[in-house]
Amino acid sequence: MKPFFKVKTVEEVLGLLERFQPLEAEEVELAGARGRVLAEDLQADEFVPDHDRSAMDGFAVRARDTFGAAETLPALFHLAGEVQMGLEPDFEIGPGQAARIWTGGMLPAGADAVVMIEYSRQVDETSVELSKPAAPWENVIRRGEDVKPGQVLLPAGLALRPQDLGLLAALGRSIVRVTRRPRAALISTGDEVIPITENPGPGRVRDVNTYSLGAMLEGFGAEVIRLGLIPDDPARLRAGVERGLALADLVIVSGGSSMGVRDFAVEVFSSFPGSEILVHGVAVSPGKPLIMAGLGNQSLWGLPGHAVSAMITADVFVRPLLDRLSGKTRLGKPWGRLVQAALARNVPSVHGRQDYIRVRLEQEGGGLKAHPILGKSGLVSTMVKADGLVCIGLNEEGRLAGSLAEVRLFDD
Amino acid sequence: MKPFFKVKTVEEVLGLLERFQPLEAEEVELAGARGRVLAEDLQADEFVPDHDRSAMDGFAVRARDTFGAAETLPALFHLAGEVQMGLEPDFEIGPGQAARIWTGGMLPAGADAVVMIEYSRQVDETSVELSKPAAPWENVIRRGEDVKPGQVLLPAGLALRPQDLGLLAALGRSIVRVTRRPRAALISTGDEVIPITENPGPGRVRDVNTYSLGAMLEGFGAEVIRLGLIPDDPARLRAGVERGLALADLVIVSGGSSMGVRDFAVEVFSSFPGSEILVHGVAVSPGKPLIMAGLGNQSLWGLPGHAVSAMITADVFVRPLLDRLSGKTRLGKPWGRLVQAALARNVPSVHGRQDYIRVRLEQEGGGLKAHPILGKSGLVSTMVKADGLVCIGLNEEGRLAGSLAEVRLFDD
Repeated sequence: MKPFFKVKTVEEVLGLLERFQPLEAEEVELAGARGRVLAEDLQADEFVPDHDRSAMDGFAVRARDTFGAAETLPALFHLAGEVQMGLEPDFEIGPGQAARIWTGGMLPAGADAVVMIEYSRQVDETSVELSKPAAPWENVIRRGEDVKPGQVLLPAGLALRPQDLGLLAALGRSIVRVTRRPRAALISTGDEVIPITENPGPGRVRDVNTYSLGAMLEGFGAEVIRLGLIPDDPARLRAGVERGLALADLVIVSGGSSMGVRDFAVEVFSSFPGSEILVHGVAVSPGKPLIMAGLGNQSLWGLPGHAVSAMITADVFVRPLLDRLSGKTRLGKPWGRLVQAALARNVPSVHGRQDYIRVRLEQEGGGLKAHPILGKSGLVSTMVKADGLVCIGLNEEGRLAGSLAEVRLFDD
Repeated sequence: MKPFFKVKTVEEVLGLLERFQPLEAEEVELAGARGRVLAEDLQADEFVPDHDRSAMDGFAVRARDTFGAAETLPALFHLAGEVQMGLEPDFEIGPGQAARIWTGGMLPAGADAVVMIEYSRQVDETSVELSKPAAPWENVIRRGEDVKPGQVLLPAGLALRPQDLGLLAALGRSIVRVTRRPRAALISTGDEVIPITENPGPGRVRDVNTYSLGAMLEGFGAEVIRLGLIPDDPARLRAGVERGLALADLVIVSGGSSMGVRDFAVEVFSSFPGSEILVHGVAVSPGKPLIMAGLGNQSLWGLPGHAVSAMITADVFVRPLLDRLSGKTRLGKPWGRLVQAALARNVPSVHGRQDYIRVRLEQEGGGLKAHPILGKSGLVSTMVKADGLVCIGLNEEGRLAGSLAEVRLFDD
């Protein structure tokens, strides 16, 4: 009988990931930077806007001249001109004067407020009545109100959202320094696994993991290099892993979950100079046979072959590595990824391991209900039915129906 | 004074979107189908797996032969052979016989269970002791246990997740029929707006919306065609919109929020044969000056120029259109996109319009707190600080501090 693994806990494995460093920075065009991770703080070097501008269509005035104006007692103003969009007005606003101005127009010198067009009545070519008082700077976006020089606006480690790109655009940053996207090479193994374009005869199954894991890793922000299928043969696996190491920051081998094959995966991973086996088994179900080796800043991963186990270990262990490599120090906000739900039935678990239970969510009454999905970890259809995972901790022996659990949602 | 708009409510505008039909289907390779929307139900046409297979490393046996086996009283089996991965075993399991089998190996005829290797002790070349009984079909994935022919596994209208691709792979669907991605052409207008690579002199600002809206629409699943900046000139705007119509399913013009410019956007939109102005103003803040026209299955959108208003109207109105065009009938599940949070302060609102309030979320105690972000809709920095939006309904006059509100999260 083969020896049992010396298994590690989830926390221990996540701790081991700290040896891996963020990848180098690179420059990308702003329009393509969505989701990329800022490699340095964005500090503003100018005022946005660069001048006081109107937030409304209306009339630029000296606020004090409008005080007391009312529908029943409009104030009369002399029209000093009209502000042309995109130009600096070539006139000033003196006492009792107003200028027609549009949203975004530059405030003329002398003016300190805008009265909305809705409260105006043009009397003749040269005069207008305004029926509402304006407080100083009302309906004006002041110079630097959006951004002032010296402010740190976006921190290094932030994954850029559309509004962050908008802010970068406002500051004229057409090129952004971001951390390079991690590259993950993906290999499926197993003599019983065939390409999806073939028909499985007796004893064979199609290669699921190249597609499910590949898409998952892309969702985590990696560039995925699909190296395809390699049979259970140490020399050929070594050649495949070597190719992966030449192309990628991490090489993920899924399959070969059986003990014999696992053993030669460890052998193959160990055979690269400088390689160190860091993980050989984890106290996690499904996913126990996980293997991980480090080679400098590169890593080699042996994931279980079962579709469900492979996806869960990728989510629990590979995702945090990809976050690290891509420099994400602002790990996003947990709401939206974690939700609370009441368990719809008792969930047994085994003391001494972390169980990831697939659950389907349903809105029931005021809250969410989590229905555990039963089924072996070889059944990809169980993941299709699931909305997320509930984790039962190492020191728990299960959860009771009705108790609240935190559900870790799958990405869309 | 110009006439006020005849504004529509959010519900009315969303109702108008029902005239637009999903785009045609196209075929894509499975590896590139993440996030794409299935154009037809996926119905299984075969068994997955195609044969009974082992879910564990161990020994294939007849379950009944293990009954009564225990650590203190192991049952002795004669080794009939070893199952080779990927091959149909060329032997059968008779009474008292066992075969070595690995995870994923095909169950030999006669066997109906697998005893895990952990409960075995090999006695000699030809015999093994098993110290645990197995129920019939224990540790076996049965033929069709994952998928049976005729089952509808994935419904048309589903946006494909990694596990869905895995299921498609298991069924050998290397090519998938999905709805074509909507193409959105994006135009920024305004004489005061300049390309981001230029320095704004007095009166000018850089083009934010090409970047913030562009990234947002990509996040909604659209292919974005950035047509750049067009000055406030009807003939040039018409030429730009015409070009957009030749390239895209929808043309989005942002900017020109001032009344005069808005009026010529309506004129330009109306000038295309068959075009019909469907929306001219909405009871929404920010975002009131929204314009929308339909031309067959294409649409023209006039979004406000202010960065915040443009993003909010894109989220509230353009996103549902893109969902429709891309054929999403399974609109995903609301958890993850909507969260409950307590308002950190009173939020005033105006009766008769729907207010979208930017909020920053914070975990406080057991729940989330939503801090309203103040600031004009011209300030993109306010969106950078926000995590999502709270909508105050048409018939509400605000919300009190401490009351629970639904927060619509921004995408990462």
